[in-house]
Amino acid sequence: MKIGKQTWRYQNKLYLTSTGTAAGPLEAKGPLGSSFDKTYDDLHCGEDNWELAERTIMREAISFCLQKANKQESDIDVFLAGDLLNQTVTSNFIAKENQIPFLGMFGACSTSMETLAVGAELVDSGFANYALCAVSSHNATAERQFRYPTEYGGPKPKTATYTVTGAGAALVSKDPSPVMVKEATIGKVVDWGIGDANDMGSAMAPAAADTIAAHFQETGRTPTDYDMIVTGDLSSVGSPIVKQLLWEKGFNIDNVHHDCGLMIYSPDQPVFAGGSGCACSAAVTFGYIASQLASGVINRVLVAATGALLNPTIIQQKETIPCVAHAVVLESAGGQ
Amino acid sequence: MKIGKQTWRYQNKLYLTSTGTAAGPLEAKGPLGSSFDKTYDDLHCGEDNWELAERTIMREAISFCLQKANKQESDIDVFLAGDLLNQTVTSNFIAKENQIPFLGMFGACSTSMETLAVGAELVDSGFANYALCAVSSHNATAERQFRYPTEYGGPKPKTATYTVTGAGAALVSKDPSPVMVKEATIGKVVDWGIGDANDMGSAMAPAAADTIAAHFQETGRTPTDYDMIVTGDLSSVGSPIVKQLLWEKGFNIDNVHHDCGLMIYSPDQPVFAGGSGCACSAAVTFGYIASQLASGVINRVLVAATGALLNPTIIQQKETIPCVAHAVVLESAGGQ
Repeated sequence: MKIGKQTWRYQNKLYLTSTGTAAGPLEAKGPLGSSFDKTYDDLHCGEDNWELAERTIMREAISFCLQKANKQESDIDVFLAGDLLNQTVTSNFIAKENQIPFLGMFGACSTSMETLAVGAELVDSGFANYALCAVSSHNATAERQFRYPTEYGGPKPKTATYTVTGAGAALVSKDPSPVMVKEATIGKVVDWGIGDANDMGSAMAPAAADTIAAHFQETGRTPTDYDMIVTGDLSSVGSPIVKQLLWEKGFNIDNVHHDCGLMIYSPDQPVFAGGSGCACSAAVTFGYIASQLASGVINRVLVAATGALLNPTIIQQKETIPCVAHAVVLESAGGQ
Repeated sequence: MKIGKQTWRYQNKLYLTSTGTAAGPLEAKGPLGSSFDKTYDDLHCGEDNWELAERTIMREAISFCLQKANKQESDIDVFLAGDLLNQTVTSNFIAKENQIPFLGMFGACSTSMETLAVGAELVDSGFANYALCAVSSHNATAERQFRYPTEYGGPKPKTATYTVTGAGAALVSKDPSPVMVKEATIGKVVDWGIGDANDMGSAMAPAAADTIAAHFQETGRTPTDYDMIVTGDLSSVGSPIVKQLLWEKGFNIDNVHHDCGLMIYSPDQPVFAGGSGCACSAAVTFGYIASQLASGVINRVLVAATGALLNPTIIQQKETIPCVAHAVVLESAGGQ
């Protein structure tokens, strides 16, 4: 049910019945490398082109997710998916393969939590028993499409982020698991006038702050009610900004804030300001964070996935970057 | 609630509380010209570039929709929108302007019924009181992005379709109106191996047939239960194919089938095989068809919006075009 302008609370006990993650070589060498179900030694993932490689990564994440729940694709009622490629082609082709009724979604890197929020809503409302949510991103497909092909060797400023190669999938249902899906806060589009595609952290931080503040206001909670408040891909540039903006709104998240883009890589990896991409929040949330919740190390997490809704044409036309953040509350089922 | 693998039936009385449509110059001269709330004399719509023109058209359709319901943007709980531009930028920018919690969706030209199906589901389940659904397309933005800029003057085969310039918006709520939203059938992705971006009618027809057949099977109805069965943009090429495919499955829709891409233009207009684009099904459904239902001329319509989930990269990589169709049942409230 709706408990505020932007916030939904699920009335049934909903679970991340299973999750699956896959990641590329750089992510495999990062601090969360061992948390991924599958990693690849190179960006090609055994395929002939980058687009096929991204597709393989999403396919593999979904395969692990369904295997863990002992489900077939034919058991699933609805597939909610998206990615960063034009016309979300990775998701479209995976939907063609799996033959599950398909709802394509797009919220840039926030698509991870957008699909999870809506998937959980469909299960809560009885419109689906099993909702499969998945996203992917790939460094080389994103570079070619949004900026320049990697082979071009263009220099980048330190504010740039590095698109995560990976995928994350989650199966939501009423079948119990150690991780529950409790609430979601749907974001509004926020644009504070940043037009630099190499500084998406600054562009997205106000959207993250807007959604997180709405979440606190509409649930009546405060940052201390959460063990972790996780943003998707604000990086080292956007993370201080979201904390400052929330502090100005009366919410101090300093002690509980983490950013998936900073968690997935070590500081010495060559990723500029940190990781970004749909897979950044998805692979971290459905891998490491879900396992921390499952083991009861933490009990309640707010994941606010952040999306920069840009495309190259609008950057050339000197427009600024609209951004959005969608947030989902996950809880350990241990205390239920 | 879910009544079949792909089909949802709304439990509450849900209405198209209001609709709004806007269309370009060629559509204004077509047989449905007088049904649009707003038409433009030229493709620029008073803007400096095509992308801004498309945005203006969507903004205007929404404005008419909200005005007719006497609602402000702040009264709306959720905005579900999509378009054909990369990263659905038209929708993103409109969401930035209207500040309504935003769910971006993508199903190519099927996005019209995808947003309507999910928007109605959110209202039915109590997750929204007012859901605003909107899509747009623009001939010049689509040509530049998917094929060649119009100025290039490339020749086209007769199987090509002409992207409709326009937009359609619908407000779904429990506030009564003469048109009800009853059911939706969510499509699976179907690909029969067509790789020609200038023959999307042939590519999409099997997807339309798949969704329409699933709808009949899961509702237990037959074509004679509908006054109209409307496909989105199969054109003169795809329309005979969908009829043939459904006939082979045991459903004869010949007497009730119409295609929005054929309805929106006259046979003598220079549109090759007919109209296409998100706005094709949206502007026809939310304009002409809604008015026919409102006046009781017809009582039950199945709108199966068809989407070709292609992008230029996959065409260059010699892949075929995955397609999807989402269908929604609209009924006249007169008989309720």
